[in-house]
Amino acid sequence: MYRSDISKTVISRLPRYFRYLGELKDKGTERISSGELSKLMKVTASQIRQDLNNFGGFGQQGYGYNVEYLYDEIGKILGLDRPHNLIICGAGSLGTALAGNPDFINRGFKIRGMFDVDPVKIGKFLHGIEVHSNSEMDEFIRENDIDIAVVAVPGEAAEGLKDKLIEYGIRAIWNFSNTDLNVPEDVIVENVHLLDSLMRLSCDIDSYAAKKVKSNGKG
Amino acid sequence: MYRSDISKTVISRLPRYFRYLGELKDKGTERISSGELSKLMKVTASQIRQDLNNFGGFGQQGYGYNVEYLYDEIGKILGLDRPHNLIICGAGSLGTALAGNPDFINRGFKIRGMFDVDPVKIGKFLHGIEVHSNSEMDEFIRENDIDIAVVAVPGEAAEGLKDKLIEYGIRAIWNFSNTDLNVPEDVIVENVHLLDSLMRLSCDIDSYAAKKVKSNGKG
Repeated sequence: MYRSDISKTVISRLPRYFRYLGELKDKGTERISSGELSKLMKVTASQIRQDLNNFGGFGQQGYGYNVEYLYDEIGKILGLDRPHNLIICGAGSLGTALAGNPDFINRGFKIRGMFDVDPVKIGKFLHGIEVHSNSEMDEFIRENDIDIAVVAVPGEAAEGLKDKLIEYGIRAIWNFSNTDLNVPEDVIVENVHLLDSLMRLSCDIDSYAAKKVKSNGKG
Repeated sequence: MYRSDISKTVISRLPRYFRYLGELKDKGTERISSGELSKLMKVTASQIRQDLNNFGGFGQQGYGYNVEYLYDEIGKILGLDRPHNLIICGAGSLGTALAGNPDFINRGFKIRGMFDVDPVKIGKFLHGIEVHSNSEMDEFIRENDIDIAVVAVPGEAAEGLKDKLIEYGIRAIWNFSNTDLNVPEDVIVENVHLLDSLMRLSCDIDSYAAKKVKSNGKG
């Protein structure tokens, strides 16, 4: 089964399946039906069957899915069967927070170095990771087999940085700057637009806010 | 125009429109056609027309959209015409990074306080925001009219915290813990699952990795 045979929409849902299957595996669950998984994940059983049918053949009628097998297969599709080497560009508070996140290393995402333009930060170690000068980036990427660059710099610096990263051979960018990056077709960008996410939340609040005030009777 | 008249899918795209319209507005652009916006945002003009038709009547044939009007209308739908009061639960490195993000305050999202269980952190100020003990949370939420709680604690602490938040009247949760929170129907959760996002990126890498090695001829 190759990644290219699976639709982008299904791919985008795989990390969540992976998370639930991992928890089931840790609890010692060997098999699970689409119905049980449906209750747990709060999506319809038919969507689960449709999504997991992409992996073919191992959701046998009446037997349910083999949790460990499915977990391993999805892990492979997600590229977790081999390690990934990351750099974090931007040693501000967000970059530092990402550097200290234990979840990433546990999944084989190794942060090899951080980069910043601020002379005060260069040479320091944050969560055990050295901050380098941007001028060393080119060599560092080649020597450390870096395949993912995290962009944790302000929006106005992100475009210029992205150009450099591509020039240095990076083809996968995890973008935390609050802007969309223009990249050639062979470069992939995964965006975490925090402000967009917060606005989606505040958008939904308004339909509840009136209710809340009434039911709390506050004031 | 009310939020409830617009589909969830369109809503999820609104922050991106808002971002682009804001940039156009700042540049002094008064009107823009769906075709121009399509090129800029890299989505089809027909999708843009379909999405923005939700706002009715102000995308006149041949005249294009009035940038400022559309920006303001979308801003209202996103709940940005009134301020929101936030607390951040978890004064670790991620919570601290969020507290220091200038984008949020610029959009009317005011972080009023942070909360932690660690006595070493309680009483400190991070980016000018005081860290309180969890035991003060109930009162603080009521007295400061808090409508959004940011969950920036480890996954295993998130469920218990979420129960407390709901008990204290919170109906909107911005969840950064790497777990899905079970909430009643009148509580909304916006998830930022960082590891899921990183796995989507690494998933896509594999289809490019082989190419990269070949074209770089490294080794």
